[in-house]
Amino acid sequence: MNQINRVAIVGGTHGNEFTGAYLIQKFAQFPDLIARPSFETVTLLANPHAFAAGRRYIEKDLNRCFLKEDLQDPTLNSYEELQAKLIQDTLASSGDNQADFILDLHSTTANMGLTIILVNSHPLNLKLAAYLSHVSPLVKIYRCSFKSITENPFVNSLCELGFAIEVGPIAQGILKATLFQQTEELVHALLDYLEEFNQREIASTNETLIVYDHLSIVDYPKKQDGTIFGMIHPELQDKDYQALNPGNPIFITFNDKTIVYEGASTVWPIFINEAAYYEKGIAMCLTQRQQINI
Amino acid sequence: MNQINRVAIVGGTHGNEFTGAYLIQKFAQFPDLIARPSFETVTLLANPHAFAAGRRYIEKDLNRCFLKEDLQDPTLNSYEELQAKLIQDTLASSGDNQADFILDLHSTTANMGLTIILVNSHPLNLKLAAYLSHVSPLVKIYRCSFKSITENPFVNSLCELGFAIEVGPIAQGILKATLFQQTEELVHALLDYLEEFNQREIASTNETLIVYDHLSIVDYPKKQDGTIFGMIHPELQDKDYQALNPGNPIFITFNDKTIVYEGASTVWPIFINEAAYYEKGIAMCLTQRQQINI
Repeated sequence: MNQINRVAIVGGTHGNEFTGAYLIQKFAQFPDLIARPSFETVTLLANPHAFAAGRRYIEKDLNRCFLKEDLQDPTLNSYEELQAKLIQDTLASSGDNQADFILDLHSTTANMGLTIILVNSHPLNLKLAAYLSHVSPLVKIYRCSFKSITENPFVNSLCELGFAIEVGPIAQGILKATLFQQTEELVHALLDYLEEFNQREIASTNETLIVYDHLSIVDYPKKQDGTIFGMIHPELQDKDYQALNPGNPIFITFNDKTIVYEGASTVWPIFINEAAYYEKGIAMCLTQRQQINI
Repeated sequence: MNQINRVAIVGGTHGNEFTGAYLIQKFAQFPDLIARPSFETVTLLANPHAFAAGRRYIEKDLNRCFLKEDLQDPTLNSYEELQAKLIQDTLASSGDNQADFILDLHSTTANMGLTIILVNSHPLNLKLAAYLSHVSPLVKIYRCSFKSITENPFVNSLCELGFAIEVGPIAQGILKATLFQQTEELVHALLDYLEEFNQREIASTNETLIVYDHLSIVDYPKKQDGTIFGMIHPELQDKDYQALNPGNPIFITFNDKTIVYEGASTVWPIFINEAAYYEKGIAMCLTQRQQINI
Protein backbone atom coordinates (compact mmCIF):
# COMPACT_ATOMS: atom_id res chain seq x y z
CA MET A 1 0.00 0.00 0.00
CA ASN A 2 1.67 3.19 -1.19
CA GLN A 3 -1.26 5.52 -0.96
CA ILE A 4 -4.54 5.48 0.95
CA ASN A 5 -7.30 6.90 -1.18
CA ARG A 6 -10.40 6.07 0.79
CA VAL A 7 -11.02 5.58 4.51
CA ALA A 8 -14.31 4.15 5.79
CA ILE A 9 -15.48 4.85 9.34
CA VAL A 10 -18.11 2.30 10.32
CA GLY A 11 -20.43 2.68 13.34
CA GLY A 12 -23.48 0.90 14.64
CA THR A 13 -22.27 -2.53 13.51
CA HIS A 14 -23.95 -3.39 16.81
CA GLY A 15 -27.12 -1.33 17.08
CA ASN A 16 -26.96 -0.75 20.84
CA GLU A 17 -23.38 0.55 20.81
CA PHE A 18 -24.31 4.19 20.58
CA THR A 19 -20.88 5.84 20.80
CA GLY A 20 -19.88 4.81 17.28
CA ALA A 21 -23.36 5.08 15.82
CA TYR A 22 -23.84 8.70 16.94
CA LEU A 23 -20.24 9.64 16.16
CA ILE A 24 -20.49 8.60 12.52
CA GLN A 25 -23.79 10.47 12.25
CA LYS A 26 -21.99 13.57 13.53
CA PHE A 27 -19.24 12.99 10.93
CA ALA A 28 -21.83 12.45 8.19
CA GLN A 29 -23.43 15.77 9.11
CA PHE A 30 -20.12 17.64 9.33
CA PRO A 31 -17.89 15.91 6.75
CA ASP A 32 -15.21 18.60 7.07
CA LEU A 33 -14.31 17.06 10.42
CA ILE A 34 -13.06 13.89 8.78
CA ALA A 35 -11.86 15.33 5.48
CA ARG A 36 -8.12 15.23 4.87
CA PRO A 37 -6.30 16.59 1.80
CA SER A 38 -4.94 13.33 0.39
CA PHE A 39 -7.83 10.90 0.84
CA GLU A 40 -11.59 10.66 0.98
CA THR A 41 -13.33 9.63 4.21
CA VAL A 42 -16.78 8.06 4.17
CA THR A 43 -19.09 6.93 6.98
CA LEU A 44 -21.35 3.92 7.19
CA LEU A 45 -24.09 3.09 9.70
CA ALA A 46 -23.67 -0.66 9.40
CA ASN A 47 -26.83 -2.01 11.05
CA PRO A 48 -29.55 0.66 10.76
CA HIS A 49 -32.43 -1.67 11.75
CA ALA A 50 -30.69 -2.82 14.91
CA PHE A 51 -29.77 0.79 15.75
CA ALA A 52 -33.40 1.86 15.31
CA ALA A 53 -34.47 -1.01 17.58
CA GLY A 54 -31.73 -0.29 20.15
CA ARG A 55 -30.54 -3.87 19.93
CA ARG A 56 -27.20 -5.48 19.12
CA TYR A 57 -28.71 -7.20 16.12
CA ILE A 58 -32.06 -8.21 14.64
CA GLU A 59 -31.43 -11.82 13.63
CA LYS A 60 -27.70 -12.51 13.84
CA ASP A 61 -24.59 -10.72 15.12
CA LEU A 62 -23.51 -8.67 12.08
CA ASN A 63 -19.88 -8.69 13.17
CA ARG A 64 -19.83 -12.48 12.79
CA CYS A 65 -21.26 -12.43 9.24
CA PHE A 66 -18.11 -11.61 7.26
CA LEU A 67 -16.61 -15.07 6.78
CA LYS A 68 -15.64 -15.22 3.12
CA GLU A 69 -17.61 -18.41 2.53
CA ASP A 70 -20.72 -16.90 4.14
CA LEU A 71 -20.49 -13.77 2.02
CA GLN A 72 -20.42 -16.01 -1.05
CA ASP A 73 -23.28 -18.25 0.10
CA PRO A 74 -26.50 -17.23 -1.71
CA THR A 75 -28.65 -19.27 0.72
CA LEU A 76 -27.79 -17.02 3.69
CA ASN A 77 -30.42 -14.33 3.79
CA SER A 78 -31.12 -13.16 7.33
CA TYR A 79 -31.19 -9.37 7.68
CA GLU A 80 -27.62 -9.21 8.93
CA GLU A 81 -26.29 -11.71 6.39
CA LEU A 82 -27.75 -9.60 3.60
CA GLN A 83 -26.43 -6.45 5.25
CA ALA A 84 -22.93 -7.98 5.36
CA LYS A 85 -23.08 -8.67 1.64
CA LEU A 86 -24.24 -5.10 1.02
CA ILE A 87 -21.36 -3.74 3.10
CA GLN A 88 -18.92 -5.93 1.21
CA ASP A 89 -20.30 -4.56 -2.07
CA THR A 90 -19.99 -1.01 -0.73
CA LEU A 91 -16.54 -1.14 0.82
CA ALA A 92 -14.71 -4.08 -0.71
CA SER A 93 -15.70 -4.28 -4.34
CA SER A 94 -12.80 -3.39 -6.57
CA GLY A 95 -13.26 0.01 -8.13
CA ASP A 96 -13.57 3.63 -7.07
CA ASN A 97 -15.55 2.89 -3.96
CA GLN A 98 -13.12 0.40 -2.46
CA ALA A 99 -11.97 1.33 1.01
CA ASP A 100 -8.24 1.16 1.68
CA PHE A 101 -8.68 1.45 5.42
CA ILE A 102 -11.69 0.47 7.59
CA LEU A 103 -12.18 1.74 11.12
CA ASP A 104 -15.05 -0.04 12.93
CA LEU A 105 -16.33 1.67 16.11
CA HIS A 106 -17.58 -0.49 18.98
CA SER A 107 -18.25 -0.13 22.69
CA THR A 108 -18.19 -2.55 25.61
CA THR A 109 -19.48 -2.85 29.16
CA ALA A 110 -15.97 -3.99 30.13
CA ASN A 111 -13.39 -1.54 31.46
CA MET A 112 -11.27 -1.58 28.30
CA GLY A 113 -10.54 2.12 27.84
CA LEU A 114 -9.81 2.76 24.16
CA THR A 115 -8.86 -0.67 22.84
CA ILE A 116 -7.54 -1.19 19.32
CA ILE A 117 -8.44 -4.67 18.08
CA LEU A 118 -5.91 -5.83 15.53
CA VAL A 119 -6.90 -8.75 13.33
CA ASN A 120 -3.54 -8.91 11.57
CA SER A 121 -0.02 -7.58 12.02
CA HIS A 122 0.30 -5.38 8.96
CA PRO A 123 3.20 -2.97 9.67
CA LEU A 124 1.07 0.11 9.06
CA ASN A 125 -1.61 -1.11 11.47
CA LEU A 126 1.07 -1.72 14.11
CA LYS A 127 2.74 1.66 13.58
CA LEU A 128 -0.59 3.43 13.70
CA ALA A 129 -1.54 1.58 16.88
CA ALA A 130 1.79 2.55 18.42
CA TYR A 131 1.22 6.19 17.47
CA LEU A 132 -2.28 6.22 18.97
CA SER A 133 -1.01 4.65 22.19
CA HIS A 134 1.41 7.56 22.46
CA VAL A 135 -1.41 10.04 21.88
CA SER A 136 -3.65 8.65 24.64
CA PRO A 137 -2.68 6.64 27.72
CA LEU A 138 -6.13 4.99 27.56
CA VAL A 139 -5.18 3.16 24.35
CA LYS A 140 -4.48 -0.57 24.65
CA ILE A 141 -3.76 -2.97 21.81
CA TYR A 142 -5.46 -6.36 21.63
CA ARG A 143 -4.38 -8.66 18.83
CA CYS A 144 -6.73 -11.36 17.73
CA SER A 145 -4.87 -12.98 14.84
CA PHE A 146 -6.59 -15.36 12.51
CA LYS A 147 -4.67 -18.20 10.88
CA SER A 148 -6.19 -17.16 7.59
CA ILE A 149 -8.19 -14.18 6.38
CA THR A 150 -10.98 -16.63 5.47
CA GLU A 151 -11.49 -17.40 9.17
CA ASN A 152 -12.15 -13.78 10.11
CA PRO A 153 -15.89 -13.05 10.58
CA PHE A 154 -15.50 -9.32 11.40
CA VAL A 155 -16.18 -6.24 9.30
CA ASN A 156 -12.43 -5.70 9.39
CA SER A 157 -11.89 -8.85 7.30
CA LEU A 158 -12.91 -6.77 4.28
CA CYS A 159 -9.67 -4.81 4.26
CA GLU A 160 -6.10 -5.53 5.31
CA LEU A 161 -5.65 -2.04 6.71
CA GLY A 162 -7.72 -0.89 9.63
CA PHE A 163 -9.07 -2.24 12.89
CA ALA A 164 -11.88 -1.96 15.37
CA ILE A 165 -11.88 0.40 18.34
CA GLU A 166 -13.65 -0.94 21.41
CA VAL A 167 -14.38 1.72 24.05
CA GLY A 168 -15.64 1.22 27.58
CA PRO A 169 -16.89 0.74 30.15
CA ILE A 170 -20.28 1.90 28.93
CA ALA A 171 -23.72 0.32 29.16
CA GLN A 172 -25.44 -0.67 25.95
CA GLY A 173 -27.94 1.86 24.70
CA ILE A 174 -26.44 5.01 26.19
CA LEU A 175 -23.98 7.77 25.36
CA LYS A 176 -21.31 8.95 27.77
CA ALA A 177 -19.96 12.34 26.78
CA THR A 178 -16.42 11.71 28.01
CA LEU A 179 -16.06 8.48 26.06
CA PHE A 180 -17.72 10.03 22.98
CA GLN A 181 -15.17 12.86 23.03
CA GLN A 182 -12.20 10.56 23.67
CA THR A 183 -13.26 8.34 20.78
CA GLU A 184 -13.66 11.34 18.50
CA GLU A 185 -10.18 12.61 19.42
CA LEU A 186 -8.76 9.18 18.63
CA VAL A 187 -10.42 9.20 15.20
CA HIS A 188 -8.95 12.62 14.43
CA ALA A 189 -5.48 11.45 15.48
CA LEU A 190 -5.87 8.37 13.29
CA LEU A 191 -6.89 10.38 10.24
CA ASP A 192 -4.01 12.82 10.81
CA TYR A 193 -1.59 9.90 10.91
CA LEU A 194 -2.93 8.47 7.65
CA GLU A 195 -2.55 11.90 6.07
CA GLU A 196 1.09 12.00 7.19
CA PHE A 197 1.55 8.50 5.81
CA ASN A 198 0.29 9.64 2.43
CA GLN A 199 2.54 12.70 2.60
CA ARG A 200 5.54 10.45 3.39
CA GLU A 201 6.08 12.43 6.59
CA ILE A 202 6.40 9.49 8.95
CA ALA A 203 9.93 8.96 10.11
CA SER A 204 11.15 5.40 10.27
CA THR A 205 11.67 4.47 13.91
CA ASN A 206 12.70 1.44 15.86
CA GLU A 207 10.25 1.23 18.64
CA THR A 208 8.57 -1.24 20.91
CA LEU A 209 4.90 -1.76 21.52
CA ILE A 210 2.92 -3.57 24.23
CA VAL A 211 0.42 -5.94 22.61
CA TYR A 212 -2.11 -8.22 24.33
CA ASP A 213 -2.34 -11.38 22.23
CA HIS A 214 -5.51 -13.44 22.39
CA LEU A 215 -5.05 -16.80 24.13
CA SER A 216 -8.46 -18.26 24.99
CA ILE A 217 -11.89 -17.57 26.36
CA VAL A 218 -13.36 -18.43 29.77
CA ASP A 219 -17.06 -19.21 30.20
CA TYR A 220 -19.17 -18.53 33.29
CA PRO A 221 -19.60 -21.35 35.80
CA LYS A 222 -22.63 -23.23 34.51
CA LYS A 223 -24.91 -26.02 35.66
CA GLN A 224 -25.59 -29.02 33.43
CA ASP A 225 -28.70 -27.31 32.07
CA GLY A 226 -26.56 -24.42 30.85
CA THR A 227 -27.68 -21.82 33.40
CA ILE A 228 -24.97 -19.86 35.13
CA PHE A 229 -24.38 -20.13 38.87
CA GLY A 230 -21.72 -17.49 39.38
CA MET A 231 -20.63 -13.96 38.55
CA ILE A 232 -17.34 -12.16 37.90
CA HIS A 233 -15.61 -11.90 41.27
CA PRO A 234 -15.62 -8.36 42.71
CA GLU A 235 -11.80 -8.44 42.80
CA LEU A 236 -11.69 -9.08 39.02
CA GLN A 237 -14.52 -6.74 37.92
CA ASP A 238 -13.12 -3.76 35.96
CA LYS A 239 -9.56 -5.17 36.11
CA ASP A 240 -9.19 -5.59 32.35
CA TYR A 241 -5.52 -5.62 31.23
CA GLN A 242 -4.28 -6.33 34.76
CA ALA A 243 -2.23 -9.45 35.52
CA LEU A 244 -4.24 -12.45 36.72
CA ASN A 245 -2.15 -15.07 38.48
CA PRO A 246 -2.93 -18.72 39.23
CA GLY A 247 -4.95 -18.81 42.45
CA ASN A 248 -6.48 -15.35 42.00
CA PRO A 249 -10.31 -15.13 42.29
CA ILE A 250 -12.21 -14.98 39.02
CA PHE A 251 -15.81 -15.89 39.90
CA ILE A 252 -18.06 -15.83 42.93
CA THR A 253 -21.04 -18.18 42.96
CA PHE A 254 -24.54 -17.03 43.88
CA ASN A 255 -23.85 -18.76 47.22
CA ASP A 256 -20.69 -16.77 47.93
CA LYS A 257 -18.12 -19.42 47.01
CA THR A 258 -15.00 -18.06 45.34
CA ILE A 259 -13.67 -19.76 42.20
CA VAL A 260 -10.01 -19.11 41.44
CA TYR A 261 -8.03 -19.06 38.22
CA GLU A 262 -6.39 -22.45 37.81
CA GLY A 263 -4.20 -21.81 34.78
CA ALA A 264 -0.49 -22.54 34.82
CA SER A 265 0.80 -19.00 34.38
CA THR A 266 -0.06 -15.31 34.49
CA VAL A 267 -2.58 -14.03 31.95
CA TRP A 268 -4.15 -10.63 31.24
CA PRO A 269 -7.97 -10.87 31.00
CA ILE A 270 -10.04 -8.46 28.92
CA PHE A 271 -13.71 -8.22 27.92
CA ILE A 272 -14.47 -8.98 31.58
CA ASN A 273 -18.29 -9.03 32.02
CA GLU A 274 -19.16 -7.84 28.51
CA ALA A 275 -22.97 -7.92 28.30
CA ALA A 276 -23.15 -9.17 24.71
CA TYR A 277 -20.90 -12.13 25.49
CA TYR A 278 -23.21 -13.82 28.02
CA GLU A 279 -25.05 -15.47 25.13
CA LYS A 280 -21.75 -16.41 23.50
CA GLY A 281 -20.50 -18.18 26.64
CA ILE A 282 -17.67 -15.73 27.24
CA ALA A 283 -17.06 -14.29 30.71
CA MET A 284 -13.68 -12.89 29.68
CA CYS A 285 -10.92 -13.30 27.10
CA LEU A 286 -7.45 -14.22 28.34
CA THR A 287 -4.48 -12.60 26.68
CA GLN A 288 -0.70 -12.71 26.81
CA ARG A 289 0.97 -9.36 27.34
CA GLN A 290 4.08 -8.92 25.26
CA GLN A 291 6.44 -6.28 24.05
CA ILE A 292 7.13 -6.42 20.35
CA ASN A 293 9.51 -4.53 18.11
CA ILE A 294 7.94 -2.71 15.18
CA MET B 1 -53.24 -4.33 57.63
CA ASN B 2 -52.77 -6.16 60.90
CA GLN B 3 -50.89 -9.18 59.65
CA ILE B 4 -48.86 -9.90 56.54
CA ASN B 5 -49.48 -13.44 55.37
CA ARG B 6 -47.85 -13.52 51.98
CA VAL B 7 -44.92 -11.60 50.48
CA ALA B 8 -44.14 -11.76 46.77
CA ILE B 9 -40.65 -11.01 45.47
CA VAL B 10 -40.80 -10.21 41.76
CA GLY B 11 -37.76 -10.15 39.45
CA GLY B 12 -37.20 -9.93 35.74
CA THR B 13 -40.13 -7.58 35.17
CA HIS B 14 -37.62 -6.19 32.70
CA GLY B 15 -35.84 -9.12 31.09
CA ASN B 16 -32.42 -7.47 30.77
CA GLU B 17 -32.24 -6.42 34.43
CA PHE B 18 -30.35 -9.48 35.60
CA THR B 19 -29.79 -8.63 39.28
CA GLY B 20 -33.40 -9.23 40.26
CA ALA B 21 -34.00 -12.04 37.77
CA TYR B 22 -31.06 -14.12 39.04
CA LEU B 23 -31.71 -13.22 42.68
CA ILE B 24 -35.26 -14.56 42.64
CA GLN B 25 -34.01 -17.70 40.91
CA LYS B 26 -31.56 -18.15 43.78
CA PHE B 27 -34.41 -17.63 46.25
CA ALA B 28 -36.62 -20.08 44.36
CA GLN B 29 -33.87 -22.68 44.57
CA PHE B 30 -33.15 -22.03 48.27
CA PRO B 31 -36.54 -21.02 49.71
CA ASP B 32 -35.22 -21.22 53.29
CA LEU B 33 -33.38 -17.96 52.59
CA ILE B 34 -36.62 -16.03 52.30
CA ALA B 35 -38.78 -18.06 54.68
CA ARG B 36 -39.87 -16.30 57.87
CA PRO B 37 -41.96 -17.82 60.67
CA SER B 38 -45.06 -15.66 60.39
CA PHE B 39 -45.58 -15.35 56.63
CA GLU B 40 -45.06 -17.13 53.34
CA THR B 41 -42.66 -15.70 50.73
CA VAL B 42 -43.06 -16.51 47.04
CA THR B 43 -40.99 -15.56 44.01
CA LEU B 44 -42.10 -14.65 40.51
CA LEU B 45 -40.06 -14.27 37.32
CA ALA B 46 -42.36 -11.69 35.78
CA ASN B 47 -41.26 -11.64 32.12
CA PRO B 48 -39.69 -15.02 31.29
CA HIS B 49 -39.71 -14.51 27.50
CA ALA B 50 -37.93 -11.17 27.76
CA PHE B 51 -35.42 -12.64 30.24
CA ALA B 52 -34.71 -15.52 27.84
CA ALA B 53 -34.21 -13.00 25.03
CA GLY B 54 -32.07 -10.68 27.19
CA ARG B 55 -34.33 -7.77 26.35
CA ARG B 56 -36.34 -5.34 28.46
CA TYR B 57 -39.56 -6.57 26.87
CA ILE B 58 -40.84 -8.45 23.86
CA GLU B 59 -43.71 -6.24 22.70
CA LYS B 60 -44.45 -3.67 25.40
CA ASP B 61 -42.86 -2.53 28.68
CA LEU B 62 -44.45 -4.90 31.22
CA ASN B 63 -44.05 -2.37 34.02
CA ARG B 64 -46.40 -0.02 32.17
CA CYS B 65 -49.12 -2.65 31.68
CA PHE B 66 -50.79 -2.54 35.11
CA LEU B 67 -53.24 0.32 34.66
CA LYS B 68 -56.53 -0.95 36.11
CA GLU B 69 -58.44 -0.19 32.91
CA ASP B 70 -55.86 -2.03 30.80
CA LEU B 71 -55.98 -5.10 33.03
CA GLN B 72 -59.76 -5.16 32.51
CA ASP B 73 -59.58 -4.60 28.75
CA PRO B 74 -60.08 -7.94 26.93
CA THR B 75 -58.86 -6.48 23.62
CA LEU B 76 -55.30 -5.98 24.93
CA ASN B 77 -53.39 -9.13 24.11
CA SER B 78 -49.72 -8.44 23.48
CA TYR B 79 -47.40 -10.83 25.30
CA GLU B 80 -46.76 -8.38 28.13
CA GLU B 81 -50.42 -7.31 28.42
CA LEU B 82 -51.42 -10.95 28.85
CA GLN B 83 -48.53 -11.49 31.25
CA ALA B 84 -49.75 -8.52 33.35
CA LYS B 85 -53.21 -10.07 33.58
CA LEU B 86 -51.65 -13.39 34.60
CA ILE B 87 -49.59 -11.68 37.30
CA GLN B 88 -52.69 -9.89 38.56
CA ASP B 89 -54.50 -13.23 38.77
CA THR B 90 -51.54 -14.74 40.60
CA LEU B 91 -50.78 -12.00 43.10
CA ALA B 92 -53.89 -9.86 43.39
CA SER B 93 -56.89 -12.14 43.17
CA SER B 94 -58.68 -12.35 46.49
CA GLY B 95 -58.08 -15.69 48.14
CA ASP B 96 -55.24 -17.68 49.59
CA ASN B 97 -52.74 -16.64 46.95
CA GLN B 98 -53.20 -12.90 47.39
CA ALA B 99 -49.94 -11.09 48.15
CA ASP B 100 -50.02 -8.64 51.05
CA PHE B 101 -46.68 -7.15 50.11
CA ILE B 102 -44.98 -6.97 46.68
CA LEU B 103 -41.28 -6.26 46.24
CA ASP B 104 -40.32 -5.66 42.59
CA LEU B 105 -36.58 -5.84 41.80
CA HIS B 106 -35.16 -3.59 39.10
CA SER B 107 -31.78 -2.26 37.99
CA THR B 108 -30.65 0.90 36.22
CA THR B 109 -27.67 2.25 34.31
CA ALA B 110 -27.97 5.41 36.46
CA ASN B 111 -25.90 5.83 39.63
CA MET B 112 -28.86 5.38 41.98
CA GLY B 113 -27.38 3.06 44.61
CA LEU B 114 -30.21 1.10 46.24
CA THR B 115 -33.28 3.20 45.51
CA ILE B 116 -36.67 2.44 47.01
CA ILE B 117 -39.44 3.63 44.68
CA LEU B 118 -42.54 4.43 46.69
CA VAL B 119 -45.80 4.71 44.76
CA ASN B 120 -47.83 5.70 47.81
CA SER B 121 -47.23 6.94 51.34
CA HIS B 122 -48.66 4.07 53.34
CA PRO B 123 -47.21 4.39 56.87
CA LEU B 124 -45.76 0.86 56.83
CA ASN B 125 -44.02 1.48 53.50
CA LEU B 126 -42.53 4.70 54.90
CA LYS B 127 -41.40 3.08 58.16
CA LEU B 128 -39.88 0.17 56.29
CA ALA B 129 -38.08 2.53 53.90
CA ALA B 130 -36.75 4.48 56.89
CA TYR B 131 -35.54 1.26 58.50
CA LEU B 132 -33.75 0.13 55.32
CA SER B 133 -32.09 3.52 54.94
CA HIS B 134 -30.65 3.03 58.44
CA VAL B 135 -29.42 -0.45 57.49
CA SER B 136 -27.55 0.73 54.36
CA PRO B 137 -26.18 4.19 53.53
CA LEU B 138 -26.71 3.35 49.82
CA VAL B 139 -30.50 3.41 50.27
CA LYS B 140 -32.34 6.41 48.86
CA ILE B 141 -36.09 6.94 48.75
CA TYR B 142 -37.79 8.20 45.61
CA ARG B 143 -41.53 8.85 45.85
CA CYS B 144 -43.55 8.82 42.69
CA SER B 145 -47.06 9.40 43.97
CA PHE B 146 -50.06 8.87 41.76
CA LYS B 147 -53.21 10.93 42.20
CA SER B 148 -55.18 7.72 42.11
CA ILE B 149 -54.29 4.03 42.20
CA THR B 150 -55.97 3.69 38.79
CA GLU B 151 -53.23 5.86 37.24
CA ASN B 152 -50.42 3.58 38.39
CA PRO B 153 -49.11 1.33 35.57
CA PHE B 154 -46.49 -0.52 37.68
CA VAL B 155 -46.50 -4.04 39.11
CA ASN B 156 -46.66 -2.34 42.50
CA SER B 157 -50.16 -1.02 41.71
CA LEU B 158 -51.43 -4.52 42.53
CA CYS B 159 -50.87 -4.09 46.25
CA GLU B 160 -50.88 -1.15 48.64
CA LEU B 161 -47.91 -2.53 50.56
CA GLY B 162 -44.57 -2.88 48.88
CA PHE B 163 -42.37 -1.02 46.44
CA ALA B 164 -39.76 -1.43 43.75
CA ILE B 165 -36.03 -1.45 44.43
CA GLU B 166 -33.93 0.07 41.67
CA VAL B 167 -30.21 -0.71 41.93
CA GLY B 168 -27.37 0.80 39.93
CA PRO B 169 -25.27 1.75 38.15
CA ILE B 170 -25.20 -1.46 36.16
CA ALA B 171 -25.37 -2.13 32.43
CA GLN B 172 -28.33 -4.05 31.09
CA GLY B 173 -27.66 -7.73 30.56
CA ILE B 174 -24.95 -8.25 33.17
CA LEU B 175 -24.51 -9.20 36.82
CA LYS B 176 -22.26 -7.32 39.20
CA ALA B 177 -21.44 -9.36 42.27
CA THR B 178 -21.26 -6.41 44.66
CA LEU B 179 -24.67 -5.08 43.65
CA PHE B 180 -26.17 -8.59 43.67
CA GLN B 181 -24.98 -9.09 47.25
CA GLN B 182 -26.10 -5.63 48.40
CA THR B 183 -29.56 -6.22 46.93
CA GLU B 184 -29.79 -9.62 48.60
CA GLU B 185 -28.85 -8.12 51.98
CA LEU B 186 -31.54 -5.49 51.53
CA VAL B 187 -34.15 -8.17 50.81
CA HIS B 188 -33.17 -10.05 53.97
CA ALA B 189 -33.42 -6.88 56.07
CA LEU B 190 -36.82 -6.16 54.54
CA LEU B 191 -38.17 -9.64 55.32
CA ASP B 192 -36.79 -9.42 58.87
CA TYR B 193 -38.61 -6.12 59.35
CA LEU B 194 -41.91 -7.58 58.12
CA GLU B 195 -41.44 -10.48 60.53
CA GLU B 196 -40.97 -8.01 63.39
CA PHE B 197 -44.05 -6.13 62.22
CA ASN B 198 -46.08 -9.34 62.41
CA GLN B 199 -44.62 -10.08 65.86
CA ARG B 200 -45.59 -6.55 67.05
CA GLU B 201 -41.95 -5.93 67.92
CA ILE B 202 -41.60 -2.58 66.17
CA ALA B 203 -41.42 0.26 68.64
CA SER B 204 -43.36 3.38 67.77
CA THR B 205 -40.90 6.15 67.02
CA ASN B 206 -41.02 9.74 65.90
CA GLU B 207 -38.48 10.00 63.22
CA THR B 208 -37.66 11.90 60.08
CA LEU B 209 -36.90 10.61 56.64
CA ILE B 210 -35.34 12.16 53.53
CA VAL B 211 -37.61 11.59 50.54
CA TYR B 212 -37.02 12.63 46.92
CA ASP B 213 -40.43 13.51 45.49
CA HIS B 214 -40.94 13.29 41.74
CA LEU B 215 -41.35 16.67 40.04
CA SER B 216 -40.94 16.27 36.29
CA ILE B 217 -38.93 14.68 33.52
CA VAL B 218 -36.36 16.23 31.19
CA ASP B 219 -35.89 14.99 27.63
CA TYR B 220 -32.65 15.01 25.64
CA PRO B 221 -32.03 17.97 23.33
CA LYS B 222 -33.67 16.95 20.07
CA LYS B 223 -33.90 18.17 16.50
CA GLN B 224 -37.25 18.62 14.79
CA ASP B 225 -37.05 15.11 13.36
CA GLY B 226 -36.81 13.72 16.89
CA THR B 227 -33.14 12.71 16.81
CA ILE B 228 -31.03 13.76 19.77
CA PHE B 229 -28.14 16.18 19.40
CA GLY B 230 -26.69 16.10 22.87
CA MET B 231 -25.65 13.91 25.79
CA ILE B 232 -25.68 14.14 29.57
CA HIS B 233 -22.97 16.64 30.51
CA PRO B 234 -19.87 15.03 32.07
CA GLU B 235 -20.40 17.17 35.18
CA LEU B 236 -23.88 15.69 35.67
CA GLN B 237 -23.15 12.05 34.74
CA ASP B 238 -23.39 9.79 37.84
CA LYS B 239 -24.54 12.73 40.02
CA ASP B 240 -27.94 11.24 40.85
CA TYR B 241 -29.41 12.63 44.10
CA GLN B 242 -27.03 15.60 44.07
CA ALA B 243 -28.35 19.17 44.02
CA LEU B 244 -28.67 20.72 40.56
CA ASN B 245 -28.87 24.50 40.60
CA PRO B 246 -30.10 26.91 37.91
CA GLY B 247 -27.17 27.57 35.58
CA ASN B 248 -25.48 24.20 36.19
CA PRO B 249 -24.59 22.15 33.06
CA ILE B 250 -26.96 19.34 32.17
CA PHE B 251 -26.22 18.48 28.53
CA ILE B 252 -23.35 18.81 26.10
CA THR B 253 -24.16 18.79 22.40
CA PHE B 254 -22.29 16.63 19.91
CA ASN B 255 -20.54 19.88 18.94
CA ASP B 256 -19.31 20.62 22.48
CA LYS B 257 -21.87 23.29 23.40
CA THR B 258 -22.97 23.17 27.03
CA ILE B 259 -26.68 23.40 27.85
CA VAL B 260 -27.48 24.54 31.40
CA TYR B 261 -30.40 23.89 33.69
CA GLU B 262 -32.79 26.81 33.38
CA GLY B 263 -35.29 25.98 36.11
CA ALA B 264 -36.17 28.49 38.81
CA SER B 265 -34.82 26.59 41.81
CA THR B 266 -32.64 23.73 42.98
CA VAL B 267 -33.72 20.20 42.04
CA TRP B 268 -32.26 16.73 42.63
CA PRO B 269 -32.05 14.72 39.38
CA ILE B 270 -32.20 10.91 39.30
CA PHE B 271 -32.38 8.27 36.56
CA ILE B 272 -29.63 10.28 34.83
CA ASN B 273 -28.77 8.51 31.55
CA GLU B 274 -30.91 5.40 32.11
CA ALA B 275 -30.60 3.31 28.93
CA ALA B 276 -34.23 2.19 28.82
CA TYR B 277 -35.48 5.77 29.01
CA TYR B 278 -33.95 6.96 25.72
CA GLU B 279 -36.99 5.60 23.87
CA LYS B 280 -39.31 7.13 26.46
CA GLY B 281 -37.82 10.61 25.97
CA ILE B 282 -36.41 10.82 29.49
CA ALA B 283 -32.85 11.99 30.06
CA MET B 284 -33.43 12.32 33.81
CA CYS B 285 -36.19 12.74 36.39
CA LEU B 286 -36.14 15.85 38.56
CA THR B 287 -37.08 15.49 42.23
CA GLN B 288 -37.57 17.67 45.27
CA ARG B 289 -35.58 16.59 48.32
CA GLN B 290 -37.51 16.89 51.52
CA GLN B 291 -37.42 15.78 55.09
CA ILE B 292 -40.70 14.31 56.31
CA ASN B 293 -41.90 13.17 59.70
CA ILE B 294 -43.12 9.61 59.92
